[in-house]
Amino acid sequence: MKKKIKEKQLHNLRHSAAHLLAHAVTDLFPETLLAIGPVTDDGFFYDFLPPRNFKEEDLEIIEKRMREIAKENIPLEQREISKKEAKELFKNNPFKLELIDQIPGETVGLSVQGPFYDLCRGDHIASTGDIKHFLLLSISGSYWRADRENQPLQRIYGTAFTTKEDLEKFIQHRKDALEYDHRKLGKELDLFSFHDEAPGAVFFHDKGMRIFRIMKEYLRSKLDADNYQEISTPIILKSKLWKQSGHYAHYKENMYFCNMGDTEYAVRPMNCPGAILVYKERPRSYRELPLKLAEFGIDHRYELSGVLHGLMRVRAFTMDDAHVFCTPEQMESEIIGLIRLVFDVLHRYGFSVINVALSTRPESSMGSDKLWDLATKALENGLKKEKVDFSIKEGEGAFYGPKIEFRIEDSMGREWQCSTIQVDFNLPENFDLTYINKEGKKARPVMIHRAIYGSMERFLGILLEHYKGRLPFWLAPVQMKILTITDAQNKYAATLANKLKGEGFRVEIDETSDQISAKIKKAQNEKVPWMIIIGNKEEETHSTTIRYPDGKQLFGISQNELIAQAHVIKKEII
Amino acid sequence: MKKKIKEKQLHNLRHSAAHLLAHAVTDLFPETLLAIGPVTDDGFFYDFLPPRNFKEEDLEIIEKRMREIAKENIPLEQREISKKEAKELFKNNPFKLELIDQIPGETVGLSVQGPFYDLCRGDHIASTGDIKHFLLLSISGSYWRADRENQPLQRIYGTAFTTKEDLEKFIQHRKDALEYDHRKLGKELDLFSFHDEAPGAVFFHDKGMRIFRIMKEYLRSKLDADNYQEISTPIILKSKLWKQSGHYAHYKENMYFCNMGDTEYAVRPMNCPGAILVYKERPRSYRELPLKLAEFGIDHRYELSGVLHGLMRVRAFTMDDAHVFCTPEQMESEIIGLIRLVFDVLHRYGFSVINVALSTRPESSMGSDKLWDLATKALENGLKKEKVDFSIKEGEGAFYGPKIEFRIEDSMGREWQCSTIQVDFNLPENFDLTYINKEGKKARPVMIHRAIYGSMERFLGILLEHYKGRLPFWLAPVQMKILTITDAQNKYAATLANKLKGEGFRVEIDETSDQISAKIKKAQNEKVPWMIIIGNKEEETHSTTIRYPDGKQLFGISQNELIAQAHVIKKEII
Repeated sequence: MKKKIKEKQLHNLRHSAAHLLAHAVTDLFPETLLAIGPVTDDGFFYDFLPPRNFKEEDLEIIEKRMREIAKENIPLEQREISKKEAKELFKNNPFKLELIDQIPGETVGLSVQGPFYDLCRGDHIASTGDIKHFLLLSISGSYWRADRENQPLQRIYGTAFTTKEDLEKFIQHRKDALEYDHRKLGKELDLFSFHDEAPGAVFFHDKGMRIFRIMKEYLRSKLDADNYQEISTPIILKSKLWKQSGHYAHYKENMYFCNMGDTEYAVRPMNCPGAILVYKERPRSYRELPLKLAEFGIDHRYELSGVLHGLMRVRAFTMDDAHVFCTPEQMESEIIGLIRLVFDVLHRYGFSVINVALSTRPESSMGSDKLWDLATKALENGLKKEKVDFSIKEGEGAFYGPKIEFRIEDSMGREWQCSTIQVDFNLPENFDLTYINKEGKKARPVMIHRAIYGSMERFLGILLEHYKGRLPFWLAPVQMKILTITDAQNKYAATLANKLKGEGFRVEIDETSDQISAKIKKAQNEKVPWMIIIGNKEEETHSTTIRYPDGKQLFGISQNELIAQAHVIKKEII
Repeated sequence: MKKKIKEKQLHNLRHSAAHLLAHAVTDLFPETLLAIGPVTDDGFFYDFLPPRNFKEEDLEIIEKRMREIAKENIPLEQREISKKEAKELFKNNPFKLELIDQIPGETVGLSVQGPFYDLCRGDHIASTGDIKHFLLLSISGSYWRADRENQPLQRIYGTAFTTKEDLEKFIQHRKDALEYDHRKLGKELDLFSFHDEAPGAVFFHDKGMRIFRIMKEYLRSKLDADNYQEISTPIILKSKLWKQSGHYAHYKENMYFCNMGDTEYAVRPMNCPGAILVYKERPRSYRELPLKLAEFGIDHRYELSGVLHGLMRVRAFTMDDAHVFCTPEQMESEIIGLIRLVFDVLHRYGFSVINVALSTRPESSMGSDKLWDLATKALENGLKKEKVDFSIKEGEGAFYGPKIEFRIEDSMGREWQCSTIQVDFNLPENFDLTYINKEGKKARPVMIHRAIYGSMERFLGILLEHYKGRLPFWLAPVQMKILTITDAQNKYAATLANKLKGEGFRVEIDETSDQISAKIKKAQNEKVPWMIIIGNKEEETHSTTIRYPDGKQLFGISQNELIAQAHVIKKEII
């Protein structure tokens, strides 16, 4: 509950800060028309129609004026006025007039702070003086109601926090996000590249591919332990299949089509139909259920080039999804297993803050009340039994079933939605899936889609930024780099490298004739977790010196000790 | 040389057997027109235009007549006659007349055996009596000069051998090939399936996928040891790239195209351009060469549905290719490394007979004499230094460079071409690939394509047939199956399974309430290498009983002994 109160406080603060921004803008640019100014996930914005477009320099002036008004400590007053009165007040502002007409009832809210007033539902702080820790962030173009056909507007983004520390953390995170942009890291660390010959499709280089493989192998080890079956199904399938699945009707604009002979094929945007065909390959018995089919499938979804963004938004990606086919009665225990798996995997990647939401039946939906009830209860009970805090998104489920979404918070305080557990009543109907139940009769299985990484490419992008490029030992493409002080140690270095490789570690040797200081700098830039320095002394005593990224060095470590330490660190999250 | 003589003998025998077939057919169906009757890899055929289509029953009658003529021991005589004479002899046969016109010179060869004669270049055995060990195999429809627009013909296939043993082996192999058809095994062993929604594209089931993964991981371990870099590049790329590579001009009919926005994209038929874009991603120095980029890439090539054949001929497949970028001087040592790798891998899969051919410069080709000479010498010297026997296919190289092809012989005596080492002068030109040489100047690298499996799907199909479904321990999707005699041992079985899994083995438990004899039968049908039988006694003594596929059982094997034995057997080829 405490969390909710804090969230409410922050919301009110930012809401009032948006008014403060509008107040300052109208003071400085009196002819400006105000459009709307909502709170966002990490701040607020306000859309204006100013007499001229804002310039970068305006931000400072506006922010200065905001601080002055804040200092005046003007009380905020919330009034309820008649629509007629409101229309008179805003008679020169077509945006507000449009809004007033859309508000149900006879009255509307008005927020007043000194000479400034705005149409407003309320929820404010007491006085402008309470807005202490704020910042304007950027200007961008926008449109009234986000529609390109409408009036172009000018948007100013800002943020506000209840404490100075929170604001400072935010500023640091913004700085970090620029510095540790995964696209920049991808280039610096030689992990991947993008090319105009295939926009939105990743070219993985050796080291990026190693991380990708580790991510796969790690998940496979979890799947093996959990009795999944891994399948691999085709990437290009006939359109008739996509008509049956419903994708053709609902997702066509994002799909790639090929005409071969007189048949239309589509490149798959998701793996589900492939898993369904494997399920249907032969009659299934209740004895085989739950049947868990996992696939690391390459999917293609066409996105406009303007929205492509490094690994975060691509056109081609690998989905780590699985489809659990089970009886309605098995749903709850399966969901518990899935929730555990999701947390297990996300924790392994160092995500400790995970926000969970359960989305329930929307107004327009398919499937019986009984099935919806059973599925929603199964998800809810699963979360409760696993003692997971979660919010409920009433009516926000898919039309074909309820779902659980997991949002991870990264080291820069940003939230990412990756994992989902989605119950599906639709595809089993569309594809007439059945199993023979204990009574020897045909019955309809439930299908649960689940993805943990979601898009593996995007998850890798998140990981790179989360760890600021410094991947933990277990994930690092090169875990140890052996640096020889002179050429004389090359042979010893090779023997040591082979020994470490034999233990399953990823090792490189820097055999160049560079100075040791240059070698250290290079390895640091490459963000290698451990540097193993080998000089005359180490060779003589068959030992090693370990140098950690923070510059700390451990001398005279025997080879076996080094191996033992490495086996310990590879189990750690960091 | 001995091998060549034997090959020549076999060729002459089969060539004469084709004449014997034509002789018998003209005896039995005198109105038949003879078209052509060449020798094939495993026998011969003859194309006829008979008064009516042949029936299955005709085969027996024709073969009987062949045996009679053989018994008559008619000497074979080869004559040289003038074209005029020949045209008179064959005046009623438009096929032979067409052939006579196409033969250069003024004379043509005629083969005569008793009343029968045929247009023929020669190379026969002495007398029909020498054709002792032969067999007619099948009838199929064909077309004059294999062109669907031409006259439809009737083709009869047959084979002949110099010894009875060879014929019997051939018959056994044919029987085996039917019984161990990989499509049948794939279904029986639950490895994969095909579906009409994606003809020619494999749906891998769990166990098939496990073998596929083992094949990948095994090759990866070789690549790691050999300093390859593994990359992964997009599947769909703009057509402009395929125009640059030359595929658009030469391979368009087999490619899948998608139009997205106003851009044409193609689904890749091969991985090469992706590797080239990674190479070109930044300037390369001679210090980085040889640069070996490997990719397990999914490729699509459209084939007519009539030619699709299980895993052997598909439309979508994974190519295990690599591209070695090197200086011309590095070619020889790189090729030696590649030859070793190919043999190493093929031997691991139990292929001991590997026929190697070097294909040299064709008449029409690109690249300087110097480069061709260097590359051909590099391939030839590589083979010689590795003491590999090889044949030379004069002028059969690609227009862009010479190559080495490796043909493996399977356990049924069939040859498959999988691995290739191909030098390419073309793509480095088309994509203007460069590196900075020691003198600081731009130079052109050589590109060597190499694949070992070729299509991994096809290689898997070959493996399944080669091993008759009984994969060796190291490749088996389930290596050991624990069979409990009663439910009482389930717990012990689970503990043992975990211990074995911890050692890296693939283990299953049969916990059903079936009788042990039924469990054994099932495991045998599944072709599991080792059955581990667990009864009361085994549990009490913490031991196991190993049952091998041949029924041999070893009792009282301790768990550690079992593990030790398993670690030994997994290194074996069988």
